[in-house]
Amino acid sequence: MRKSFDLYFASSNKNKYSEAKEILSKFKLNLGFFEFAPVEIQSNSILEIATKKSLDAYWSCKKPVIVEDDGLFIPALGGFPGPYSSYVFKTIGNAGILNLVKSKRNAEFHSVIAYCDGKKPVLFQGVIKGVISKKQKGNDWGYDPIFIPKGKTKTYAELDDKNTLSHRYITLGKFARWYKKSINN
Amino acid sequence: MRKSFDLYFASSNKNKYSEAKEILSKFKLNLGFFEFAPVEIQSNSILEIATKKSLDAYWSCKKPVIVEDDGLFIPALGGFPGPYSSYVFKTIGNAGILNLVKSKRNAEFHSVIAYCDGKKPVLFQGVIKGVISKKQKGNDWGYDPIFIPKGKTKTYAELDDKNTLSHRYITLGKFARWYKKSINN
Repeated sequence: MRKSFDLYFASSNKNKYSEAKEILSKFKLNLGFFEFAPVEIQSNSILEIATKKSLDAYWSCKKPVIVEDDGLFIPALGGFPGPYSSYVFKTIGNAGILNLVKSKRNAEFHSVIAYCDGKKPVLFQGVIKGVISKKQKGNDWGYDPIFIPKGKTKTYAELDDKNTLSHRYITLGKFARWYKKSINN
Repeated sequence: MRKSFDLYFASSNKNKYSEAKEILSKFKLNLGFFEFAPVEIQSNSILEIATKKSLDAYWSCKKPVIVEDDGLFIPALGGFPGPYSSYVFKTIGNAGILNLVKSKRNAEFHSVIAYCDGKKPVLFQGVIKGVISKKQKGNDWGYDPIFIPKGKTKTYAELDDKNTLSHRYITLGKFARWYKKSINN
C-alpha cells in the first residue's frame, strides 16, 4: 500500500525536502515529497512567487501541499539578489557578491512557505538578519559560506546548529504551529 | 473613428514602443501601442519569456501583436545579467556590473521579437557583440553607457547612430522583412 502523508512538499530540490521533513517531524508532521518543476514568475516579491507556485503545485498534486521560496536580500544593493538569488548564485556566485558588497554589509535571508489545499494559499514568512562576511568560509552550498547571522561570528556554512536557527526553520515552525491548530485537529 | 493599425507593440514601456514605431515606419508598417504589463516567467531563455509574453498579449489584445525582450549577456559571468537585466539594472546598476567585470570584458546584447496572431508565435533574434567599457560614458538609460559595440570606440550612449546599429534594430528589421512577405501581402 502506498504510504499516506499529511501533506506534501512540492519542489524540484530533494535536499530542501529532506531538510523540511526533518524539521516538521519534530512537530509530528509526516511530510511527503512531490517532485515538481514549476514555471516561476518574475516578481520582486517572493511572497507572490510562492503564492503562484503553491496554486500550480496543488493543481498538479491534488493533495495539500507546501512550497518554499527563499532569497538573500542586501539592502545596500537595493535588495539584490533577492528573488533571483538562485540565478545570481549560478552565474556570479559568492565571489560576485563579495565584489559588490563594500562598506555596508548588512544582509537578510528571507524564507516564505505557501500552503495550499485548493483554497486561497496561506503564507508564512521568516527572516534572519546578519552580515556578509569578508571572505567565503566553510564548504556548504548556496550563500551559506558568506552569511554570518546576527549574534554569531561564524558563517551559516561553519555553524553546526544552522538548521535550528535558519530562516527556513523559523518559517517551517510558524507553519507547523498554524497547521496543527487549524487543519490537523 | 479609431485609427487602425497593422499590428500592435505590447509593452509597459512607451519609450520602447516609440523606438520600434520609428524603425518600423521605415518599412511602411504602422505600429500601434497596446499597454500591457505581463506576468513574466523566470527562465534563462529570453526566447521562452518572449514566446509566453506574446501569447498573453495576443489574448488580451485580440489583434496581431509583437513583444520585445532583450538582455545583456556577459560570458565571463555565466551570461549574467541575461534575462534578469532589468532587475539587475534597478538594483546594482552599471556601477555593480563594472565591479564584477575584470579582465574578460566581452559582452553581447540580445534582442528577441515574438509575433503572435493567435497561432504559434514566430520568433526573431538579433545579437550585437561588444565589450564592457572601463567606466560609464554618456548619459543614457540602461546599460547603454557601459556597452561599446564591436568596431566602435564609443559606448551605445555616446553614439549618435545607435538606433541604426542596435540589437533591437536588427531584430525589428528581420521581423519587418518577414512580416511584409508572409502576412501583409
